[in-house]
Amino acid sequence: MPIDFAPSAESAEITQRTEAFVRDVVIPEEQATGGVPGPAGGLGDDLRARLQDGAKAAGVFAPHAPVDVGGHGLGMSDRASVFEAAGYSLLGPLALNIAAPDEGNVHLLAEVANPEQRERYLAPLASGATRSCFAMTEPAPGAGSDPAALASTATRVDGGWRIDGRKWFITGADGAGFAIVMARTSGSAGDRGGATMFLVDADNPGMQVGRHIDTLDQTFFGGHCEVTFEDCRVGDDAILGALDQGFRYAQVRLAPARLTHCMRWLGIARRAQDIAVARAAERELFGSALAELGMAQAMIADNEIDIAAARGLIVRSCWELDQGRSGAQSSAIAKTFCAEATWRVVDRSLQLCGALGVSGDALLSRYLREVRPFRIYDGPSETHRWAIARRVVRRHRDDR
Amino acid sequence: MPIDFAPSAESAEITQRTEAFVRDVVIPEEQATGGVPGPAGGLGDDLRARLQDGAKAAGVFAPHAPVDVGGHGLGMSDRASVFEAAGYSLLGPLALNIAAPDEGNVHLLAEVANPEQRERYLAPLASGATRSCFAMTEPAPGAGSDPAALASTATRVDGGWRIDGRKWFITGADGAGFAIVMARTSGSAGDRGGATMFLVDADNPGMQVGRHIDTLDQTFFGGHCEVTFEDCRVGDDAILGALDQGFRYAQVRLAPARLTHCMRWLGIARRAQDIAVARAAERELFGSALAELGMAQAMIADNEIDIAAARGLIVRSCWELDQGRSGAQSSAIAKTFCAEATWRVVDRSLQLCGALGVSGDALLSRYLREVRPFRIYDGPSETHRWAIARRVVRRHRDDR
Amino acid sequence: MPIDFAPSAESAEITQRTEAFVRDVVIPEEQATGGVPGPAGGLGDDLRARLQDGAKAAGVFAPHAPVDVGGHGLGMSDRASVFEAAGYSLLGPLALNIAAPDEGNVHLLAEVANPEQRERYLAPLASGATRSCFAMTEPAPGAGSDPAALASTATRVDGGWRIDGRKWFITGADGAGFAIVMARTSGSAGDRGGATMFLVDADNPGMQVGRHIDTLDQTFFGGHCEVTFEDCRVGDDAILGALDQGFRYAQVRLAPARLTHCMRWLGIARRAQDIAVARAAERELFGSALAELGMAQAMIADNEIDIAAARGLIVRSCWELDQGRSGAQSSAIAKTFCAEATWRVVDRSLQLCGALGVSGDALLSRYLREVRPFRIYDGPSETHRWAIARRVVRRHRDDR
Amino acid sequence: MPIDFAPSAESAEITQRTEAFVRDVVIPEEQATGGVPGPAGGLGDDLRARLQDGAKAAGVFAPHAPVDVGGHGLGMSDRASVFEAAGYSLLGPLALNIAAPDEGNVHLLAEVANPEQRERYLAPLASGATRSCFAMTEPAPGAGSDPAALASTATRVDGGWRIDGRKWFITGADGAGFAIVMARTSGSAGDRGGATMFLVDADNPGMQVGRHIDTLDQTFFGGHCEVTFEDCRVGDDAILGALDQGFRYAQVRLAPARLTHCMRWLGIARRAQDIAVARAAERELFGSALAELGMAQAMIADNEIDIAAARGLIVRSCWELDQGRSGAQSSAIAKTFCAEATWRVVDRSLQLCGALGVSGDALLSRYLREVRPFRIYDGPSETHRWAIARRVVRRHRDDR
Repeated sequence: MPIDFAPSAESAEITQRTEAFVRDVVIPEEQATGGVPGPAGGLGDDLRARLQDGAKAAGVFAPHAPVDVGGHGLGMSDRASVFEAAGYSLLGPLALNIAAPDEGNVHLLAEVANPEQRERYLAPLASGATRSCFAMTEPAPGAGSDPAALASTATRVDGGWRIDGRKWFITGADGAGFAIVMARTSGSAGDRGGATMFLVDADNPGMQVGRHIDTLDQTFFGGHCEVTFEDCRVGDDAILGALDQGFRYAQVRLAPARLTHCMRWLGIARRAQDIAVARAAERELFGSALAELGMAQAMIADNEIDIAAARGLIVRSCWELDQGRSGAQSSAIAKTFCAEATWRVVDRSLQLCGALGVSGDALLSRYLREVRPFRIYDGPSETHRWAIARRVVRRHRDDR
Repeated sequence: MPIDFAPSAESAEITQRTEAFVRDVVIPEEQATGGVPGPAGGLGDDLRARLQDGAKAAGVFAPHAPVDVGGHGLGMSDRASVFEAAGYSLLGPLALNIAAPDEGNVHLLAEVANPEQRERYLAPLASGATRSCFAMTEPAPGAGSDPAALASTATRVDGGWRIDGRKWFITGADGAGFAIVMARTSGSAGDRGGATMFLVDADNPGMQVGRHIDTLDQTFFGGHCEVTFEDCRVGDDAILGALDQGFRYAQVRLAPARLTHCMRWLGIARRAQDIAVARAAERELFGSALAELGMAQAMIADNEIDIAAARGLIVRSCWELDQGRSGAQSSAIAKTFCAEATWRVVDRSLQLCGALGVSGDALLSRYLREVRPFRIYDGPSETHRWAIARRVVRRHRDDR
Repeated sequence: MPIDFAPSAESAEITQRTEAFVRDVVIPEEQATGGVPGPAGGLGDDLRARLQDGAKAAGVFAPHAPVDVGGHGLGMSDRASVFEAAGYSLLGPLALNIAAPDEGNVHLLAEVANPEQRERYLAPLASGATRSCFAMTEPAPGAGSDPAALASTATRVDGGWRIDGRKWFITGADGAGFAIVMARTSGSAGDRGGATMFLVDADNPGMQVGRHIDTLDQTFFGGHCEVTFEDCRVGDDAILGALDQGFRYAQVRLAPARLTHCMRWLGIARRAQDIAVARAAERELFGSALAELGMAQAMIADNEIDIAAARGLIVRSCWELDQGRSGAQSSAIAKTFCAEATWRVVDRSLQLCGALGVSGDALLSRYLREVRPFRIYDGPSETHRWAIARRVVRRHRDDR
Repeated sequence: MPIDFAPSAESAEITQRTEAFVRDVVIPEEQATGGVPGPAGGLGDDLRARLQDGAKAAGVFAPHAPVDVGGHGLGMSDRASVFEAAGYSLLGPLALNIAAPDEGNVHLLAEVANPEQRERYLAPLASGATRSCFAMTEPAPGAGSDPAALASTATRVDGGWRIDGRKWFITGADGAGFAIVMARTSGSAGDRGGATMFLVDADNPGMQVGRHIDTLDQTFFGGHCEVTFEDCRVGDDAILGALDQGFRYAQVRLAPARLTHCMRWLGIARRAQDIAVARAAERELFGSALAELGMAQAMIADNEIDIAAARGLIVRSCWELDQGRSGAQSSAIAKTFCAEATWRVVDRSLQLCGALGVSGDALLSRYLREVRPFRIYDGPSETHRWAIARRVVRRHRDDR
């Protein structure tokens, strides 16, 4: 069989249902509420519940979660078009329960959690009954672009562990039911190993969710928060997977989480293009439609090229992951390209809309703010380029 | 004498004083208040008065205004370094009374106003006693990228004129003491002539300042507003300059106003670069300072190149204007390049600062929002490119 | 079944054999001969025959030709990796008989030729016994970026047709056994219909192959020639397909021919990257390997991203064609991106090699010259962008 | 006095005369001869002499050389427009005797040579009676991007020095009357000091001009050659300036030589733009002139912007040098920008000309080849960016 780009029948159906759901249910809610999930948007748990009920009714809820916890069990390739369709509105991922960081945490728990953890943490997370956060990033000089700089510690104490450390930019922390916390159980900051993941309940008195970090983007329900762990006590049963394997599990989460970010933002890129094209088709300028002027056509075409190329890179890397391959290189390539391409698409679309584009009356100025940080989080483009080049050079050296 | 890049002694002195004033007075105020002049920034007339008093005390107030109304009377070339120094803080132009649109209106009135208008409008505007707005832009299909589409009308009535029309994106309208209004006194929408400028007092019952248009940027004191003229009666003495010469005067205002925008935003580009360089010099990553990593160096160098090239284009066009030449081509080139270069500089600087860059804790995410619209207002880059190319082709045809 | 990027077993095997053949047979010939197939390279029919015999022996000859004329009958998707592997050397496509324009002509004849034409023209072309050219492009104001401007005519005469017209940039014309000629049988220059394809033997006295047009590139065996048709008489049996259907058949040839260009040039992009990476891994500069300097890493990574994105767009469009879909939009997107990406890859690779890169001692300066015209032939990027945007806008209008 | 962009009267006059000379004398010669000065162009000493006689007659010869050796003695700022006018044809700099490397060597000798050397080397070089080369660059791992890697040695022997070393990419070596040779008189490869410059006559039996290195570009009369020094004996009077001061003198030559390259290539950029604009104004496409299509206009405008920005950076840096300032940063900025801008201008111009652009019938494919190496020689863009960034960071650290 030659290369086959047709998605599975199940994926195609859920994609179609998601498109209809976004068009008929999500976008009207978006217009009614402002449509920004993050804390500044003022959207509350009510809206989240309403959206998720709608997604359940539409048969598109939790497409990524394992079937035994109520999901559709789609693989990575099959997720791509569904997530893109959901990403067409900033509210879509929240509705389908595939927003970061919960979506990545569902993936991680499905791979690593033991049966008890699966029941206690994965099941309610997959159903939307609770939310979660992933507490890895630390202020400089801690874990950031370089995860090995991890400074938070988990020290063995009577009956378990004591976690201490300061995290920031912890997405979704405010209101999360639990955190997956990365802390050092051996070695010291700079070492490539020695990290362990812990499941910490939000009501643990040693865990404090601090201020929201004010950022350009406002997409993430639960915001980006500072989280402090101080004498935070947990039992051995809080260890996710095996001791000292935290960096390895982070990799398990990493490539898929990168790609699902790409899928969702690709949805926004398409939305931006659709807004701009609609505008260009209607707006008269210098005696013809804007869409018939060459410079506008160049921008529309470049958007289309960027979107197509981004999609191609995403599905390629998904296929590698579905094959059990590491996908480290292909997902780094996809992430770097998509983050920059999405940015270009939104920027061009905004330019096409002129004064309307920079006004708050259009969604585009909002999207410009939302997509910019994607070139930084989940690895800045520069870090990815460094890693991509190193792998290329290593491959060359191995080949000789 | 060969080409001489040295500014005049007076310009050099005022520039130095402005740098000191911005460092010692403006930036501390910026940190105390949030530093965003626009309506969302919540800065009031008190701060404006305090800043302007400071600038007067520092001997840097109104560097562009004619000497007889209390300014320093600097020409375009001499303004460049002063405005750039003031632009280093978003509050700087407000302090020196050289923010848009007042700065351009001072320039326009100094060129066109009759003695009575000079006393009644120019003098208090130059001294900071009042503010103003320039009411030209209209919602589509009115005057926008194509000024000739002007739809607002001024109809002759007993004892003067009646102005009717709808304007939007009128910067600084909220709180302005008067407006310079562009309205059609002959011809119809699409005609290249037939516009007249009128001076309308803000308390004229026929002029209504409507809602603030919510935009990405928040730099402009008085915001971007909708302004409606309905049965707005003015006398013949409200005509600025001569009847039907409005488009010609708009040109008088246009090229200098473009360039002063460039000067001010160049100040922000330098600020962004300074913030990024400070960060890169201090931040350790992968065992060396960020500033020693090649990709960071490339961004720092590209910023420096963009800043230097922008400055070169600005002073060149200023010199042409000071020589009495039209500067239409050189100012369009400078505007297009500066708007895009400033955007690139801020974007790279933000990227260099990583997570800190997209947080509200850094000024960079603010600057990203502030500079984006400059690629659209005062002529979108695409309109300028169209005009630049047409002049090149016309010159070629004339040469044959 | 979800999306599947695995090529068919047959394609995978031929790809592997092609890689080995290029490495073991073609590259040594390349080094012995200069490796430039075009007329300035001085390579003759001997080398072509030797290379093609080698490809036959290796079991990789004519992978695209129908099985009944001796090919492997691979579909578009299956061709992609084979053609890329062959394209790794400028001599590779010649060896496999998949160089332009013969490859596209095989494709066209396989789709449109009648049994007699199939035997007389397709069979010897597929076997390498003869070469061909495709005579469509005309000097301005004839058929160029706009095919409808076709000016050459075929006039009905006793016993057949008389073809008159002037063609240029006719690739491979020198030495070709026959030409597929596009001429107008109805309508006049500018009409969207009325063209017919004719098969004209090279020994027809009415067909004259004129001078070689000296161009930057020298890849094409048989060069780019001027070809004149003057009172060129052919019978009715010379019509390829049906009367007046020439533009439609040109479309049949167009999308696949675009994509196979992309595949071949992608091979050169990979070669360029491999040369640059080898150099960067070995070259010491400022105390470390060039490959460890950030700016070099950025270039290596950008090459890798461009190559991956190009490949993704190619296989996507191939899949559409294999599904019987038009592929007009996806192949235009792929062509535009690949032509520019390949150019960027070669340019960066050359830069990475420094002085060595611009010297004739490296292949890179050769590749720079070879790939540049690809942004122009088979439709300039600007024409493709125009067409891409128009389709997007049309789709938008149809959707409303 | 404010900033003044007007050139001196003398510079303006020589510029005007140069423009007329290039138009009336040089371009006709260009068309008659192919117009490529380099060895592959087959232009001989006859043409060089004829062109230089013409320039003398036109009063534009040696504008940069000191008055006492027959030049016009123009400073850097005053050279800019003259060199740009000469650079409008590839033959222009040869005609005015301001081609690399002689032009830079005149500059260097004027600054450093003692009276005897001035008479023996500078005077005949300035008059065009002889040619010269500058023998610094060595094959890796010698002096290249990093001059400190200098490996050639000059060892003290009875009665003088013995020079040994291998140089390459020595422009103009073939036919040169003498070489300025950089060799190490103390320290070893990697040391930042210890180099001395020697004047070596071409008939010295220890100096051998080897093969021409085949390169993309063919602009340089005398080619790019390998030059070997083996037991090359010279007296103490061969030392240019002082012992061990070679690197310092290289700096004296460096910044001005960079800038004059920029000036000359800017001439080619303007030529390319003029060719493209002429074509775009005449060529009809899809019912209108190419010059009226938006994407073409964008390219024309971007060319104009690039040219203006490049010119601004050049004159700024020239002014600094004329002021006695180092110009290290500003000339690095100018060089980096100009090399890339010129490349973009030629590339866009070629694209605007379509098939004609890549054919040898147009000058553009020639220019594409000629300008590409400028992004590498005189310091690759990456090395300049590294140096620019380091200076910025150092300035920041000093300011604290």
